[in-house]
Amino acid sequence: MDDRPWIALTMGDPAGVGPELCLRALSDAAIHRLARLAVFGDWAILDRCRRTLGWGMPKVGIRDAMFGDSPLLETHAAGVIVQTGEPLPDSFQPGVVSADTGTRSAAYLDAAIAAARAGWVHAITTAPINKDAWDRAGVSFPGHTEFLAERFGVRRWTMLQYAEDLACSFVTTHVGHQKAIDGMTKERIVEVIQLSVDGLRRIRKRDPHVIVCGLNPHAGEGGLFGNREEERLIQPAIESVRKSGVSIEGPLPADTAFIPQNRERADVYVCMYHDQGHIPIKALAFDRAVNTTLGLPTPRTSVDHGTALDIAWKGKANPGSLFAALRLAARLIA
Amino acid sequence: MDDRPWIALTMGDPAGVGPELCLRALSDAAIHRLARLAVFGDWAILDRCRRTLGWGMPKVGIRDAMFGDSPLLETHAAGVIVQTGEPLPDSFQPGVVSADTGTRSAAYLDAAIAAARAGWVHAITTAPINKDAWDRAGVSFPGHTEFLAERFGVRRWTMLQYAEDLACSFVTTHVGHQKAIDGMTKERIVEVIQLSVDGLRRIRKRDPHVIVCGLNPHAGEGGLFGNREEERLIQPAIESVRKSGVSIEGPLPADTAFIPQNRERADVYVCMYHDQGHIPIKALAFDRAVNTTLGLPTPRTSVDHGTALDIAWKGKANPGSLFAALRLAARLIA
Repeated sequence: MDDRPWIALTMGDPAGVGPELCLRALSDAAIHRLARLAVFGDWAILDRCRRTLGWGMPKVGIRDAMFGDSPLLETHAAGVIVQTGEPLPDSFQPGVVSADTGTRSAAYLDAAIAAARAGWVHAITTAPINKDAWDRAGVSFPGHTEFLAERFGVRRWTMLQYAEDLACSFVTTHVGHQKAIDGMTKERIVEVIQLSVDGLRRIRKRDPHVIVCGLNPHAGEGGLFGNREEERLIQPAIESVRKSGVSIEGPLPADTAFIPQNRERADVYVCMYHDQGHIPIKALAFDRAVNTTLGLPTPRTSVDHGTALDIAWKGKANPGSLFAALRLAARLIA
Repeated sequence: MDDRPWIALTMGDPAGVGPELCLRALSDAAIHRLARLAVFGDWAILDRCRRTLGWGMPKVGIRDAMFGDSPLLETHAAGVIVQTGEPLPDSFQPGVVSADTGTRSAAYLDAAIAAARAGWVHAITTAPINKDAWDRAGVSFPGHTEFLAERFGVRRWTMLQYAEDLACSFVTTHVGHQKAIDGMTKERIVEVIQLSVDGLRRIRKRDPHVIVCGLNPHAGEGGLFGNREEERLIQPAIESVRKSGVSIEGPLPADTAFIPQNRERADVYVCMYHDQGHIPIKALAFDRAVNTTLGLPTPRTSVDHGTALDIAWKGKANPGSLFAALRLAARLIA
């Protein structure tokens, strides 16, 4: 009996690099050892893509997402393509997004979420969607994460940027510099710490050590800079979580927090705002970090790049980020 | 004739690691090749420090700062100690700051500034002062930089954190996260860009390339995050400077700004707030960055650490940061 987990891999925008990356994943023996792949997408597009590139078609099963409530079939093939959504119109061109491509990528994601809710897949990994295409299609979410949170009916979630040597979770993300402060409550900070501890425990199979960053320069320098957010919000959140036995320290000044000797000790950094964590992740772990959403009932990981329309369907897209995302998804399941 | 420049090295707080670092600098042949050192401090403290450590006294000249308006004497010794301020009281203990030590470190700085204004020294390098000691002594500046700016009567200045492979200047520094936005005006951004170009031109002897960071996540994502600070303030500042022939780009999202391929191109990053530049500097160039103040009539560099009272007068303080600060001071003069 095959006890590998199923990972739903959504194909992303058909005009982008998603189709060729799915073909790469379906052809990768190391990925197959970790998990069985169910690509939520469109066989016709994958086939056209592989013919454009002169590649062979991986040996896959095909299943229609509309065919209801039976679980995914066991297969000895490279994976399953779950046929989702209407065929694309003749006007479709690789590299050119449209309302049509936006509608399709949202449909793939919706079908993968339905499969997860039904228990047929154990994690979701997402290839890139295109925001412009979603806008044209009337899909009103800023990105995957908010779409997933709403469809799963989840209100407690956070983004985790994960690399082996540096992981950052976020109290606030895609809001302006000024508004980030409004999103900081003691309750939200506690929530993100707890989600981070749960997530890292799944990944590392042990209790993690958490470093929490301050908001202001020098973590406020004892109240000199800022509005004592460190004393009013962050410190009480840390104390409250520490009582439950979490190994935690902070608020540390955000600049010294990421010096080498602190990085050795930290399993995860809880960051107050987007760039506080994304600057060190991109500076130190560029091309290695995986974006994952903690708090969903089904683990979800993502590539850390966009649709890359300028190189789409040319076979040039580096599959490293997708493979890292699939590997992390498998660890989050286990 | 000896044409090496003179660098004023202020001894910093007597209770901290400043005295032993000054002794190290006075004993370093590589530093002597670059510049002549005038240590603004107190011979009795330096002598007590070197006896405590069992070190020899470097061969120095001694000069009284009070003795008026004659220039520093030529010397074949390791340097000059410019005797400044009252002797410390018997109660003085290494490792313990007080109003007395705060008064002294401010006096050393004042005397060095006077020497710079008189043209006797060509740069100032500062050993660490202690803020607590300054508070007790009634010295009401948050740090060296503000003290220097006021005494020199300068209103246009910026902090530059400089390492060979990463340099960041700052539109705002020691203010809270929220207040940093208030400090961002088009005029201030232009000023910091110009000061940065001037500073890097001195250091690198060629026209530098400037990368300017945005304020909000994704540099505002076309106005989606924040209050269009990128479009209203940063972009116009960049356009205005570009017209004068500066090689410049931005506003770049602050996270991708610091990825390796961008770092190769940038001679200096103009950052909007303290941690935007200090996070990558400390993560990537820890122990190598020198803090310098651009815009003063006399170049000024500083160690990047504090008084380190726990290891003071034990001979354990690493002189690397001070030596880097002295080397950069010599380049800024040339």
